[in-house]
Amino acid sequence: MLKEWVKPQKPSNEELTERLQAARAALSAQQMAIKEKQLPVLVIMDGWGAAGKGSVLGRVIRSLDPRFFKTETLGKPTEDEVRRPFLYRYFRRIPEAGKYSFFDGSWMDDVTRLYLAGKIKESEFKRQLTSIKRFERQLSDNGYLVVKLFFHISQNEQRKRLMTLSEEKNTSWRVEKWDLWQNKHYEECLNVYDRYLDETNQFVAPWYFIDGKSKKWAELQVTELLVKNIDIALKNTAHSVPLLQNTFPLKSVPKLSEVPLDQMLDEETYDKKLHKLQDRLAALHNEIYRKKVPVIVGYEGWDAAGKGGNIKRLTAALDPRGFEVHPIASPEPHEKARHYLWRFWTRLPKDGHIAIFDRTWYGRVMVERLEGFCSENDWQRAYHEINEFEKELYDWGAVLVKFWVQIDKETQLARFTDRQNTPEKQWKITDEDWRNREKWDLYENAVDEMIAKTSTEFAPWQILSSNEKKFARVQALEAVIRAIEKRLDS
Amino acid sequence: MLKEWVKPQKPSNEELTERLQAARAALSAQQMAIKEKQLPVLVIMDGWGAAGKGSVLGRVIRSLDPRFFKTETLGKPTEDEVRRPFLYRYFRRIPEAGKYSFFDGSWMDDVTRLYLAGKIKESEFKRQLTSIKRFERQLSDNGYLVVKLFFHISQNEQRKRLMTLSEEKNTSWRVEKWDLWQNKHYEECLNVYDRYLDETNQFVAPWYFIDGKSKKWAELQVTELLVKNIDIALKNTAHSVPLLQNTFPLKSVPKLSEVPLDQMLDEETYDKKLHKLQDRLAALHNEIYRKKVPVIVGYEGWDAAGKGGNIKRLTAALDPRGFEVHPIASPEPHEKARHYLWRFWTRLPKDGHIAIFDRTWYGRVMVERLEGFCSENDWQRAYHEINEFEKELYDWGAVLVKFWVQIDKETQLARFTDRQNTPEKQWKITDEDWRNREKWDLYENAVDEMIAKTSTEFAPWQILSSNEKKFARVQALEAVIRAIEKRLDS
Repeated sequence: MLKEWVKPQKPSNEELTERLQAARAALSAQQMAIKEKQLPVLVIMDGWGAAGKGSVLGRVIRSLDPRFFKTETLGKPTEDEVRRPFLYRYFRRIPEAGKYSFFDGSWMDDVTRLYLAGKIKESEFKRQLTSIKRFERQLSDNGYLVVKLFFHISQNEQRKRLMTLSEEKNTSWRVEKWDLWQNKHYEECLNVYDRYLDETNQFVAPWYFIDGKSKKWAELQVTELLVKNIDIALKNTAHSVPLLQNTFPLKSVPKLSEVPLDQMLDEETYDKKLHKLQDRLAALHNEIYRKKVPVIVGYEGWDAAGKGGNIKRLTAALDPRGFEVHPIASPEPHEKARHYLWRFWTRLPKDGHIAIFDRTWYGRVMVERLEGFCSENDWQRAYHEINEFEKELYDWGAVLVKFWVQIDKETQLARFTDRQNTPEKQWKITDEDWRNREKWDLYENAVDEMIAKTSTEFAPWQILSSNEKKFARVQALEAVIRAIEKRLDS
Repeated sequence: MLKEWVKPQKPSNEELTERLQAARAALSAQQMAIKEKQLPVLVIMDGWGAAGKGSVLGRVIRSLDPRFFKTETLGKPTEDEVRRPFLYRYFRRIPEAGKYSFFDGSWMDDVTRLYLAGKIKESEFKRQLTSIKRFERQLSDNGYLVVKLFFHISQNEQRKRLMTLSEEKNTSWRVEKWDLWQNKHYEECLNVYDRYLDETNQFVAPWYFIDGKSKKWAELQVTELLVKNIDIALKNTAHSVPLLQNTFPLKSVPKLSEVPLDQMLDEETYDKKLHKLQDRLAALHNEIYRKKVPVIVGYEGWDAAGKGGNIKRLTAALDPRGFEVHPIASPEPHEKARHYLWRFWTRLPKDGHIAIFDRTWYGRVMVERLEGFCSENDWQRAYHEINEFEKELYDWGAVLVKFWVQIDKETQLARFTDRQNTPEKQWKITDEDWRNREKWDLYENAVDEMIAKTSTEFAPWQILSSNEKKFARVQALEAVIRAIEKRLDS
């Protein structure tokens, strides 16, 4: 599509100056509306080396107040980023509501560069294109304005600019080997870019080409595009979007009411089993560390179902240097201001490490749904968004185990009462727990729907029978061990 | 001091089990008090390789709820950390109020290892000891409980353990080359450790030695020590601490009332000067990037003094890939839960980059002081704490420029009124601005005191005369340029 692109006619100098003044003023004026409507704006600037991305970016932000924007330069991935899933380094940088982020270079640059250098194969490239499309769509669906710009210059123009830069001491460091390679293999790059641009040119996040011939002219194109797109987005905040059909293979999982809860376990058998399983898990922990396999265990379940004690039996087997438990409460302001999965993306373990989530990203389709903390469209969309999220984790090579810790209503009442009557346990019981209990049936329906819609082949739910806590602990250990063994054998 | 340490008598197995049970219960019971009193607890576990730090840590945390603690393993510094001041990687990991952080290895390990390996010289080692003592004292002064443990085993014992670990496939990766080196050079290490332990054995954060002979015994020693120290700290929260005498050379700086504000600058001269200075700054930006010099510019000043516009004139000269502006508002909950300098430590630029702070860490001695957001002891202590902070930045090699943007009371009134009457500017003026204006004299006194006490030779305040904004902008550019040139020449 880049190849067929017809460059717009550059206006006269006089017109250019005039339009630029108007566009800058408009961009500046939009800042307050963006803040008021809490619109997050993500602008990515890709394109040829020396096409002027950096200097145009420098000009565009002059119209903005530093309180309202951030610029992000994606250099080489850090060690920390290399040990996380592919989208991690982009996801963690998304803007918060009411602010801009400008990316100087984006995932496009990373992915196409690896592909051109032969460091990823066709199949991997394709998978990343899929991930990127999902990522951009999710951002847009969750209220982000994503503006994608590609700065275009000809091979000759690029060569001239690289030579000029190289000749000056203070600018020669800007010319990377990669830029020279790109110029030499311009046609080859053009083909790959064209394919990338074509395949990722989604309705929710389309591409815009910028003629990079002159700085001022490029600034005008960019500023006018931003103003136009922001105008539209400001009119559209809090709109509903289509719900995508599930495309991931699902496993059949029983309803909560069908799960047997009458299993018992005597103290002696429990102790023996527990220690044997913990020893096995400890050995596996060493092995996943060596083989750099990431493990993620998520816990959901009724209040007083025994999540905490269950988690403790897992962690007791683990080397504290290799795991982290993330208790998930209601989001903090800076978390609420971003895509709801952001606080989970940023808490993913490094490869070889274990992250245990005490409550998870499923809050979206349970408490947020039932308490009205998000719109109906938001939580209905979330099943698929979460499946996509977990698919990324799976493709990354993670072991992902999701537990629903199940008890019946009577058991909960008994435990609540016990907590209320035992001074050391009183902090564990709040008025909110009692209020949630009144909504038991609503929650049960929501959980059944959640489990049915998100038990994918790659990340099925496992229901722990926790009327007898000891039984559930053994179940959990067995499930985690099984999942790790399966991954290590594959 | 380690050499003279007399190991405690290990109790009988029976007594050990009994005391351990009691200590674990006590540690567990303290959790709620820690949460209620919002006590942050930092436990560092240092000692010989294979002395059992990790496994004892694993045992100790079994008595705790994952919601209340974090474990931190300090591996090799990441690229991101290497490009920040020496204390950065520790400071960013301090616990939040009401929680524990357990460090498996600490700054002690990093520093002594570099020294033993000959990678830092005596003078650098000494400087780091000073930094560490300040860091630990600041934590303690700000309400942190710092418990420092050193796990001790004999050379023979260490040799045996390393051999056992090496023989097993799943544990052999745990034995680093360093451990073997340490065992071979046990005496040499002992000497350096002994010196480190002695020099950093401060009243506010003393060392405790742990006999690492057996896991259970070590767990008992650690748990009992924690319980005892936490008990004391819980009784002591919100206490006042001595104010240290200033030891940094101070520069004399005028009082605000003595600063002339009548300078004018005509449009033409301004434009010419501005562009020349911006060009010069742009060139310097390239140079500091190449030479990896970090630059930090802090802005404080009256409301409507023109900070925003002043910052813009700086950033307009800069490549957006190499700077960041940090607007500082009131702290978010996760920031308020930590040492007040934490949110600045974590925002420090990488070397070669520029960070501009729109309002700074001086909030402590201005708004926090005058609005009663901290205790008197807190803000009085802060002058010295801030000087120490800036000394770290200076020692790191940073260019540090601090501006107070000065206007008189009439000018502020005129600008407030203008903002009130101009629709596009109304967002810039709030009721709080008017309320602050009523306290002008209180603020002026506080600012005079602040400037007098924190204008160190290495980080003096510069007062910008901003009744005429254009004049102040030129002043600011000149000052930043001067500071960078001075640093590059040195």
